[in-house]
Amino acid sequence: MKKLFTPGPTEVPSDVLAALSTETMHHRTDEFRDVMQEISEGLAYAFRTKTEPVAFTSSGSGAMEAVVAGLFSPGEKVLAVVGGKFGERWRDLSRAYGLDVTEYAVKWGTSPDPDELLSFAKENGPFAALFLTQSETSTGTLKDVEAIASRFEGSGTLLIVDSVTALGVHELLPDDWGLDAVVAGSQKAFMCPPGLGFAWLSERAWERTATSTLPKYYFSLTKARESLSKYLTPFTPAVPLFLGLRQSLARMRGEGIEAIWKRHDALGRGARAGVRALGLSLFSEAPANGVTAVVAPPEIGGDAIRADLLDAHGFRLAGGQSHLKDKIFRIGHLGFYETADIADVLRALETVLSKRGWSDADGAAVKAAEAEWK
Amino acid sequence: MKKLFTPGPTEVPSDVLAALSTETMHHRTDEFRDVMQEISEGLAYAFRTKTEPVAFTSSGSGAMEAVVAGLFSPGEKVLAVVGGKFGERWRDLSRAYGLDVTEYAVKWGTSPDPDELLSFAKENGPFAALFLTQSETSTGTLKDVEAIASRFEGSGTLLIVDSVTALGVHELLPDDWGLDAVVAGSQKAFMCPPGLGFAWLSERAWERTATSTLPKYYFSLTKARESLSKYLTPFTPAVPLFLGLRQSLARMRGEGIEAIWKRHDALGRGARAGVRALGLSLFSEAPANGVTAVVAPPEIGGDAIRADLLDAHGFRLAGGQSHLKDKIFRIGHLGFYETADIADVLRALETVLSKRGWSDADGAAVKAAEAEWK
Repeated sequence: MKKLFTPGPTEVPSDVLAALSTETMHHRTDEFRDVMQEISEGLAYAFRTKTEPVAFTSSGSGAMEAVVAGLFSPGEKVLAVVGGKFGERWRDLSRAYGLDVTEYAVKWGTSPDPDELLSFAKENGPFAALFLTQSETSTGTLKDVEAIASRFEGSGTLLIVDSVTALGVHELLPDDWGLDAVVAGSQKAFMCPPGLGFAWLSERAWERTATSTLPKYYFSLTKARESLSKYLTPFTPAVPLFLGLRQSLARMRGEGIEAIWKRHDALGRGARAGVRALGLSLFSEAPANGVTAVVAPPEIGGDAIRADLLDAHGFRLAGGQSHLKDKIFRIGHLGFYETADIADVLRALETVLSKRGWSDADGAAVKAAEAEWK
Repeated sequence: MKKLFTPGPTEVPSDVLAALSTETMHHRTDEFRDVMQEISEGLAYAFRTKTEPVAFTSSGSGAMEAVVAGLFSPGEKVLAVVGGKFGERWRDLSRAYGLDVTEYAVKWGTSPDPDELLSFAKENGPFAALFLTQSETSTGTLKDVEAIASRFEGSGTLLIVDSVTALGVHELLPDDWGLDAVVAGSQKAFMCPPGLGFAWLSERAWERTATSTLPKYYFSLTKARESLSKYLTPFTPAVPLFLGLRQSLARMRGEGIEAIWKRHDALGRGARAGVRALGLSLFSEAPANGVTAVVAPPEIGGDAIRADLLDAHGFRLAGGQSHLKDKIFRIGHLGFYETADIADVLRALETVLSKRGWSDADGAAVKAAEAEWK
């Protein structure tokens, strides 16, 4: 039975966990190059890109930093869409590096209107880049990256996407959509433990790395790309995590990325139908399929619900962040989850809410979810 | 039988490897805080410091970058002692961040004279910091950090030490010696796989973080320290590696740091006596105990010796770097090694050299090593 229903770390299959304990391997060997080649091809498959992403031993935020430090120079004007914790991260990170950041704030739980965003950019720009969060984990909200990208086509603005909790969940076609950078992390839909961050760049973005003057060393994209051309890494990599990732990428290729998107669509629909059937409302107006943010009944509070779920069922859910603390709870279901897991967590939620006097525990949540899966 | 005789990655005990595959743990839980507390106390023990080092999910170079970006501002004058690849890293990293770096070059394989270094610093300074590499892995050379630190006492120059391949091998007493920053990595004497970098700062250095203007985000020392005060990490950590590290730190505390230094002293003495008994000479004039750099007979070449050792015995040794390629080979013996392992590698080396017509294979190498261990 799965325990983690958090939007990262997510559950890790036992074969991926076992791969972590493989005997120590030196990272400057043909043996490791074979691993790196397999991983890089697997990442390009998962990213749906013709060119291979680079991998850093770091969290996903490290890969975000590689993109900021690698493409820009101090004072460059950029636009960040902020509607949650991870949108704030693009803004804060870019500010920490001395970029001239304009914040485009949207209400938490909502997605920007592509046309309004474009108008804003035209009035206040030009901007060297637009920073987006495909799936804003703090609110369970999906942005329509494809539509936004189509509006900015030909604008000269680089489209930079944090897809940490969307990649392997929602469709993302960086080449076709004309994106310039996409960032992801190992501990989300990749079904791997945390510790690896990935960054893919378009050719236009790679060209830009040549003129960027911001300081970088460990997170140098150009060093990473040069090493990748030999299937090596510029710095000593976290070998066990690469071995685990090889295993989980093999799983992803086995299932097929379109099938993975479809599975997550079912997980998301089921979770949403289930919580609605309990009389709860969703926090997001544009729900993502990797994490479902649920408004907690104020008389109970999100943290009490989460504590009950952990105590009575061993299920760990995420709470609300910042001003949403205790107001919402979040069910993560990205990566190694199937519809039966959604049924498990809905059944447990119903029991917990029933004990708190909220629901009838008549199985309505699971029934509603199953109706979605028919 | 051990396979890796490289100065990192090093061999990992099976209990540490097994700890990597422990069931997924969320990193914002009391369970993980307990792990972090145990690790932090274990690191302070290994670092011989009163205050706890911070840990980054990165290689040791990431921790070096945290120190450079965290303590300095653009244009500050610093002095880097360079006598090998890792001294070059301090220099290149500081230059990448726009510091005004003066290089104090010493011949590869030699250690600077502390008095001459101080004179140089007085003539060419003042310098905000002196960057040192305690054990220069590329040449197997130890620097007398204690003596250098004693000369610079009261100079106002921060003493910043890369102890990546010295910590847990050679005595290092940062508090007593008046050091300001010490950096290490998981995959060396810590007997853990790669993926974690550690940085300890003196109180004087922590004060300096308040005025540094260099950009940083992922490698922010202040964010790391703030999280550490709650036994958390600012970014999602590589949980499996922390679980492995907990296990290896428990091993280190069990053996005792003084005993560990003594053991490595025996490993180093044995390795040196053994290769000398084969008629080979040491590359370094001030050999370190974590890695023994051996001058290869030019008619054979270091790379052929290494290839033979790998083919016939499964032992992987390191080669020479930069201009030392093929000229030397390096026997790593830091971390999870005992004298029997040195005997194994010496025996294999003697066999290989004998087949190449160099030695008699009469057991002289092991005999010489054993004489050291009596």
